[in-house]
Amino acid sequence: MNINQKAVNALRVLSADQVQKANSGHPGLPLGAAPAAYELWANHMNHNPKNPNWENRDRFILSAGHGSALIYSLLHMFGYEGVTIEELKKFRQFGSLTPGHPEYRHTKGIEATTGPLGAGVSTAVGMAIAEAHLAEVFNKENYPVVDHYTFAMTGDGCLMEGVSYEALSLAGTLKLDKFIILYDSNNITIEGDTDFAFTEDVEARFKAFGYQVIVVKDGNDLEAISKAIEEAKAEKNKPSIIINKTQIGFGCPAKVGKASAHGEPLGAENVQAFRECLGWESQNEFEISDDIYNHYSELAENGIQKENEWNEMFAAYTKEYPEMKKLWDEYFADVDMSKIMDSKEYWEFENKSMATRATSGTIINKLKDLYPNLVGGSADLAPSNKSEMKDAGFFSPQNRGGRNIHFGVREMGMTAITSGIYLHGGLKPFCATFFVFSDFMKPMIRLAALMGLPVTYVLTHDSIGVGEDGPTHEPVEQLAMLRSIPNINVFRPADYTETAVAWATAMQSKDRPTALVLTRQNLPQLKGSSQDAFKGAYILEEASNKENIDLIIMASGSEVELAVGAKEELEKAGKSVRVVSVPCIDLFEDQDCAYKEEILPSSVRTRLAVEAGEPMPWYKYVGFEGDVVGMTTFGASAPAEELFKHFGFTVENVVNKAKALLK
Amino acid sequence: MNINQKAVNALRVLSADQVQKANSGHPGLPLGAAPAAYELWANHMNHNPKNPNWENRDRFILSAGHGSALIYSLLHMFGYEGVTIEELKKFRQFGSLTPGHPEYRHTKGIEATTGPLGAGVSTAVGMAIAEAHLAEVFNKENYPVVDHYTFAMTGDGCLMEGVSYEALSLAGTLKLDKFIILYDSNNITIEGDTDFAFTEDVEARFKAFGYQVIVVKDGNDLEAISKAIEEAKAEKNKPSIIINKTQIGFGCPAKVGKASAHGEPLGAENVQAFRECLGWESQNEFEISDDIYNHYSELAENGIQKENEWNEMFAAYTKEYPEMKKLWDEYFADVDMSKIMDSKEYWEFENKSMATRATSGTIINKLKDLYPNLVGGSADLAPSNKSEMKDAGFFSPQNRGGRNIHFGVREMGMTAITSGIYLHGGLKPFCATFFVFSDFMKPMIRLAALMGLPVTYVLTHDSIGVGEDGPTHEPVEQLAMLRSIPNINVFRPADYTETAVAWATAMQSKDRPTALVLTRQNLPQLKGSSQDAFKGAYILEEASNKENIDLIIMASGSEVELAVGAKEELEKAGKSVRVVSVPCIDLFEDQDCAYKEEILPSSVRTRLAVEAGEPMPWYKYVGFEGDVVGMTTFGASAPAEELFKHFGFTVENVVNKAKALLK
Repeated sequence: MNINQKAVNALRVLSADQVQKANSGHPGLPLGAAPAAYELWANHMNHNPKNPNWENRDRFILSAGHGSALIYSLLHMFGYEGVTIEELKKFRQFGSLTPGHPEYRHTKGIEATTGPLGAGVSTAVGMAIAEAHLAEVFNKENYPVVDHYTFAMTGDGCLMEGVSYEALSLAGTLKLDKFIILYDSNNITIEGDTDFAFTEDVEARFKAFGYQVIVVKDGNDLEAISKAIEEAKAEKNKPSIIINKTQIGFGCPAKVGKASAHGEPLGAENVQAFRECLGWESQNEFEISDDIYNHYSELAENGIQKENEWNEMFAAYTKEYPEMKKLWDEYFADVDMSKIMDSKEYWEFENKSMATRATSGTIINKLKDLYPNLVGGSADLAPSNKSEMKDAGFFSPQNRGGRNIHFGVREMGMTAITSGIYLHGGLKPFCATFFVFSDFMKPMIRLAALMGLPVTYVLTHDSIGVGEDGPTHEPVEQLAMLRSIPNINVFRPADYTETAVAWATAMQSKDRPTALVLTRQNLPQLKGSSQDAFKGAYILEEASNKENIDLIIMASGSEVELAVGAKEELEKAGKSVRVVSVPCIDLFEDQDCAYKEEILPSSVRTRLAVEAGEPMPWYKYVGFEGDVVGMTTFGASAPAEELFKHFGFTVENVVNKAKALLK
Repeated sequence: MNINQKAVNALRVLSADQVQKANSGHPGLPLGAAPAAYELWANHMNHNPKNPNWENRDRFILSAGHGSALIYSLLHMFGYEGVTIEELKKFRQFGSLTPGHPEYRHTKGIEATTGPLGAGVSTAVGMAIAEAHLAEVFNKENYPVVDHYTFAMTGDGCLMEGVSYEALSLAGTLKLDKFIILYDSNNITIEGDTDFAFTEDVEARFKAFGYQVIVVKDGNDLEAISKAIEEAKAEKNKPSIIINKTQIGFGCPAKVGKASAHGEPLGAENVQAFRECLGWESQNEFEISDDIYNHYSELAENGIQKENEWNEMFAAYTKEYPEMKKLWDEYFADVDMSKIMDSKEYWEFENKSMATRATSGTIINKLKDLYPNLVGGSADLAPSNKSEMKDAGFFSPQNRGGRNIHFGVREMGMTAITSGIYLHGGLKPFCATFFVFSDFMKPMIRLAALMGLPVTYVLTHDSIGVGEDGPTHEPVEQLAMLRSIPNINVFRPADYTETAVAWATAMQSKDRPTALVLTRQNLPQLKGSSQDAFKGAYILEEASNKENIDLIIMASGSEVELAVGAKEELEKAGKSVRVVSVPCIDLFEDQDCAYKEEILPSSVRTRLAVEAGEPMPWYKYVGFEGDVVGMTTFGASAPAEELFKHFGFTVENVVNKAKALLK
């Protein structure tokens, strides 16, 4: 057996052993896809196991994340830091570097957290966009400092998920020629043959999307795989998909080609039979002979060499173009917040009624000038979301330098792509749609929160203020939905200052997405608003008798105005009322106890929260003695003012609710 | 101008007038798509304006729901009850029958609520599945009592959304030959030309999906449209898509072919110019001449005639096959709950540890026998979801009688299709996936809740109990997400009895979806569980001193066991502790005040809620003096028992939290 074949089988054996030892996991894909993965990592992908953060490395995403044992086997054999044989033995165990699905920031060499099917390959599209854009910005003649491929390995499941159609269709439109899909086509899913539910002609589909389609008839043929990857790389006008025909559970006689190979251990006896079938010498689990390790070490050396060459080129580039090096550092370093905090202009605004979506649009265009690496776009709602960066161009095959992106009507794909743009490094992305359509974004927002990506979501038309478009377009429960996700800041600002703080929070974030929840309708500029909004909640208007507060009214966004109006009425009636603006519950929760006690003293139990959304998030702050003016039903179709009145979002109703509490 | 052309222009004029009067709405699609809509409704679709509930009518869904003015114009001209000219004048106004987007159950003749793009056409796939299945069940030689088409009208946006790829790919696999898409292809979206973001070859895509593709080059050519519809109907082996090339805003010189035609009123001047351009005689808004009304009345008569013929056939069928008529009534009537409530077998269970997903599987198979119109399936997880009805077959081109459905890895499409199956009438559908992937279902669950559809979602693997698959597969915030949606019952049962109640609740529902949230891991059968679970929350174990309760512990699902264990410990320590099982907060909220007070007396303020999910939903019930043992972070990858321990879901930790409250 030649060394390449041995090296492939090493991946298979390690994968089977991991799953067997954990007594949990998915051997099917690793056994079938090992040759393609090996050939790619060994001979075509530029990657340096000693520096997984090399900016110009080729990216690889295992979109079929359940096949994690395969990527851990690769990382181990190539010598990535931390992924020792001991970690492989702790596959799927608490605290190991080898969790059930690959996790970004957890294991070196993992480019994205994957598992929910379709997500990885969609995220990869974002990486390819980032590469194309940065290449346009930075490359100079003889200095292709940004010049790499993005590879995604998918199974059948990934290609059935809607998110992948969205993102992959856009990749075709954008002619992302350095984006290459390796499709592990084994015709088996959990319920059985793909004929049951997935008979589409995948070749024709991808041709329809504008891809080069390459078929490898025998997924064990390394030469054919190699040729296919070369062809894919050579295509300069469109993305490529390599349809690699494999057998799930290859090498395991009892399981090969069966659905049962997918997601359960092969079984001890089958693992032995499998070793025999592969002609594998050692019967000991996790044992790989030195010749194979040596072979992988040599391959890893190639990667080190590749980075060294790039480093030399980059040093010369730095010398010849010092201003580009400065720009590079600006793109790739943390966001310089002094640009915002020291900018008079950023914080200045016209004192007139404005929708926060419009305010956000103004701020985006200020940020555009402060941060050249800010990129973003909308799911075909840019004019409504006010999300366009003026004069910054649109990213397209003809204009790789465009900083705006037409995502099309594809909210979920857009969100995954936005994650990918960030994951690539060098860019600060945002994306935009109507708030109600955050429903479509949810699975990808969750993944971004799990990965800790500081991306920004611009979500406009944030309540029944949508008006005539009616209940399908009126978010009611979406604030609760987003706030329930761990590790995200959900910001619903009430005026210019708070919107400026919200965007500043988003720019400042290093490890959390930020959702900006913005109105369609105009709101006044508030007298009491301030940068205290950075703390998530603050006293907007103090009670007339601070020592003796009768009532605290809390509100966010468009309802702060009502809280202020109600306070005025109630103070006239002799009550001492504090108004607390709560643009971001998540940030408020991050404050220390003393601050929380200062804003919401435990002695003041008469509290009223006002928000045109599901009340669930507020009970923590109002307790049994308080109340919430919220939305417990869907909205309706009518002019916004009528709806606010109908659903009780008036000063009068807030005053009445307050009086009922004060009785 | 011939009468057909006048009839088409009547739809255009009424649509433009509606939008203009409302000063809000979308004239673009109605102006361009009016000829296709007219030709279909006038000459090809079997529908009876006098009986919109005729079981064998052709179904029509306006997937591009923003073009609602078009369907209201159609309903008005054909004489559907309620849709008077006065209602058209109240387009998008509070309480009118003409809301911004079409709403099911609100306006007669509206088959589904649409607006979020892609949803309608995906839902239509479900209707076509229902038709094919019911035809197989009911049709006899010479008696095609179920024999109709399902038409969906889409725009570009619908075809960009991932949900539509999912559902439409499946429709191809299932060879739903009576499913016909009318694609209004105008090359314009909100941000501009479709070339910006949507260059895929739609013809090739649908051929790849297994469709007949028919192109109408001139969307104003009624004859060509007619021919296309006939061809689509004639195809007996696959679905069809008619690509109808139109101009957005046709007839309005200032707007035709522009993005600005899409979503804003034409403007008073443009409406005049538009009338002139069309050669429309009257300058008065909403004025349609009698000859046009008469023409539509004649067309409506055809529909009445069609239903009369069907009624005659159905009467003969009833006579010849009285047992089929009985079955028909069973399918089309409300669910007969006595079958469940009087069944000893339904409520019987083995007294052993069982995962609630397995319990649910057992119950599904009991329901299968009780209710022949129960149909359902999983998004490629049937073996894990335990959702297969044994020996009930799988719906396929070869087996239209199959009651199980292979949905493929398509959660959102599945959910829309499930809505469509219910909307068709005659069937009681459910669908299944992992609970964490309810994220992918969310937009369609929301629409189902908005429409008030009694569909059922089987959501298994409901917490960190998922174990080794790790945080991407471990729901944390999904209970909060689903509970935040208005009009849905979210049921998280703790054992067999509660799961039986949960399914009974789902079967009983007439106007709300039910989400069944079920464990992967085994749970004990509880001593105190009972049909009181129908009330959403009940006393599972009473405190030792009922008159003097020290603490109430609330819990749902797998955490009820912990509550019971903690009570035992605490009672040993001399505390009087009530355990309240809360399988469904939504149902509990529906109870009267007396019952709520009985279960959670306001005098007992020391309360602890235990649920392996985001705590947000519980603060309403624990107040400032209580606490929640919940999940505020994502999970991790490890065996489930280790995770429960790590995250504090042990009797010991619950006891400690309780003791802290009792200090």
